[in-house]
Amino acid sequence: MKQVAIIGVGHTKFGTLSDKGLINLLSDASLEAISNSNTSDKDFDSVYVGAMSPSAFNNLSGIASALVDRIGLLPAAADHIKNGPASGGSAIKAGFQAIASGMDDLVLVVGGEKMTHITTPGYVTSNIATLTHPQAERQHGVSLPSLAGLLTRAYLEKYDAKLEWISDIAIKNHKNGALNPIAHFQRTIESFMESAIQKGKGNWNDVHEFLKDDKTNPVIADPLRLFHVCPISDGAAALVMCNAEIAKEYCDTPILITGIGQATDTHIVFEREELTMLEALRICSDKAYKMAHKTPKDVDVAELHDAFEILEAVQSEDIGFFAKGEGAKAAHEGLTKIGGKIPINPSGGLKARGHPLGATGVAQVVELVWQLRGEAGKRQVEGARTGITCNFGGFGNNIISIIVERY
Amino acid sequence: MKQVAIIGVGHTKFGTLSDKGLINLLSDASLEAISNSNTSDKDFDSVYVGAMSPSAFNNLSGIASALVDRIGLLPAAADHIKNGPASGGSAIKAGFQAIASGMDDLVLVVGGEKMTHITTPGYVTSNIATLTHPQAERQHGVSLPSLAGLLTRAYLEKYDAKLEWISDIAIKNHKNGALNPIAHFQRTIESFMESAIQKGKGNWNDVHEFLKDDKTNPVIADPLRLFHVCPISDGAAALVMCNAEIAKEYCDTPILITGIGQATDTHIVFEREELTMLEALRICSDKAYKMAHKTPKDVDVAELHDAFEILEAVQSEDIGFFAKGEGAKAAHEGLTKIGGKIPINPSGGLKARGHPLGATGVAQVVELVWQLRGEAGKRQVEGARTGITCNFGGFGNNIISIIVERY
Repeated sequence: MKQVAIIGVGHTKFGTLSDKGLINLLSDASLEAISNSNTSDKDFDSVYVGAMSPSAFNNLSGIASALVDRIGLLPAAADHIKNGPASGGSAIKAGFQAIASGMDDLVLVVGGEKMTHITTPGYVTSNIATLTHPQAERQHGVSLPSLAGLLTRAYLEKYDAKLEWISDIAIKNHKNGALNPIAHFQRTIESFMESAIQKGKGNWNDVHEFLKDDKTNPVIADPLRLFHVCPISDGAAALVMCNAEIAKEYCDTPILITGIGQATDTHIVFEREELTMLEALRICSDKAYKMAHKTPKDVDVAELHDAFEILEAVQSEDIGFFAKGEGAKAAHEGLTKIGGKIPINPSGGLKARGHPLGATGVAQVVELVWQLRGEAGKRQVEGARTGITCNFGGFGNNIISIIVERY
Repeated sequence: MKQVAIIGVGHTKFGTLSDKGLINLLSDASLEAISNSNTSDKDFDSVYVGAMSPSAFNNLSGIASALVDRIGLLPAAADHIKNGPASGGSAIKAGFQAIASGMDDLVLVVGGEKMTHITTPGYVTSNIATLTHPQAERQHGVSLPSLAGLLTRAYLEKYDAKLEWISDIAIKNHKNGALNPIAHFQRTIESFMESAIQKGKGNWNDVHEFLKDDKTNPVIADPLRLFHVCPISDGAAALVMCNAEIAKEYCDTPILITGIGQATDTHIVFEREELTMLEALRICSDKAYKMAHKTPKDVDVAELHDAFEILEAVQSEDIGFFAKGEGAKAAHEGLTKIGGKIPINPSGGLKARGHPLGATGVAQVVELVWQLRGEAGKRQVEGARTGITCNFGGFGNNIISIIVERY
């Protein structure tokens, strides 16, 4: 198998990007990654685009074909990879295999989504709910937030954990996001609280009290409240990847992709043996560790899929950092902050960087590339040489884990 | 690069399949391919699903994750590959690269679409029209049939060809489809004519006269009429692929995939230098031939993408069988029928086998596997050992060509 290197990255700001369409966002991230990799004058072999629902959100099909023309990469092969909110991770895997097989030498991978323009109430969340099982879940009103609420209840009860610890994850991620110039929310939750106080909306002794207020932090899916769930965001992120043999021609600090694992679990969440365990993550991260000849102890920094803050806690266990039931507590104790034992989501995660569905899996790897190159600015994890991701499709029924390394 | 073999195939009937949903169709084809490959007790590494618009047609996301659970292949990796009507070809390419890279040994590829249940007038064709360029084409009313009509006019004029020759392609494909038990239309056009005569709808001296009648064969996109365009169909087709080193453990007659090429062209058709030439097909088939160490003369049988019958003529030229402008005439002269110089679409093609968008690219390869195994029954191309496909995304802006060989 050929070794695969990342030689360039691109990342639009995430947020409400009213003046851009989906193809614009994909183009912007792609051109930045191409420029960053010094490949502007090269012929690309293929382009892989990760996006969840451009048909429903943007009335577009054939987005990979459209993009490759827009950014001047004809006649490169182009495909659109769909795996719900893990579409970005799946697109990276597709690009990886194109190079690893020896068929392609130079590949662009880009993920993106454009949703904030949709004004029909419930349209976006209803579309995302099509990931659930039509008969066993969706027709009964089950949505991804409701499953996350159930998971939170089960976790708190089973492990005698506290909702405040889940809040601590959101607090940390907003703190990290405040240091990230491309994040959707570049603000701490403390600063939201201060604004609310200044606007006379209330007075709170501390941020945890603020987070328990039904007005400033309403319940979304009991017990999860607004600040426990990620926003709806627009944005795109891109990677230029190549056969590692030629990587140094383009880039002084290529980052190797040394492990990729992907695994599925039951579509119907109820059919799983244990609600609080992500079996697919256990399997796929194990595959990635084995492929990279690493263990969880070798990891310096991780980007996990905190679409709901409970997920970061559970994922931090099933990816091997903490024992079952210890993830939320570890976050509460500061072990996952920048400078902690294992920094998680220095980018701000989905909570603060934002979650333009198809962009997220690629954005996670872009953040790790910045961290491993030492280019992460104020949120730099010192000396990071190995990173891992968890990109989460459906409600944990299709998960991808990617390991990247500086060499 | 690891060699990749096809060890099993599955294919639902194509047509109006009112009693099945999309996931059912994908399951049926998949389980048949698994049974055909004697892998029912094996662990699959990954599943690739090709489908164009399950979101718009079936209100489903995450179809690969849903399928892998339905057919008992958990925890195999699962991704959905989208490339318009070439989604099936792209899914095969993804599966090929997974094995060729050495990451996977046993892979299921399935393509399918379920459309005939949609009763809103124009919904399906409007959705397919989202493949065109939004500003330069779609907003002016351009659709894929209208582009095919323009291409036909340009071709007839430039090469002094006759519309009757394009009709001859449809006549041949219906003749082949009549021999194919899974085809949407298992009838010759002659039999349609005879039925119309019996019903007192008219009287015609021959099939070409019948095809010029505005009542029995109305204009769809001038000069193309109903019998020059493929139907809207439901259906699915599947392949089990494996590392060729282990193929003989499962199957006496594995078929090798020896060449795959994919290339893109301008999104806006008007921007192409020559409307009657499919530059992307020239590039991608050339790649496939080089990879397989073959030339067009080595090909015994081909499955081309005749969504509109003009396309078979043009593709038969740009894939290297005939000189430019000679494709329609060659069909007229019988060179492309079973037993001719180079049999094209012995399956009946998209015209008669039908065109469930995402299924087509996989169905093309299934037909070639049957031909190369000598299992094609009455439509068998004698002694066929090498076959090629053209799977056509958008209006020629993303084309895949696959070469398969018996060894």
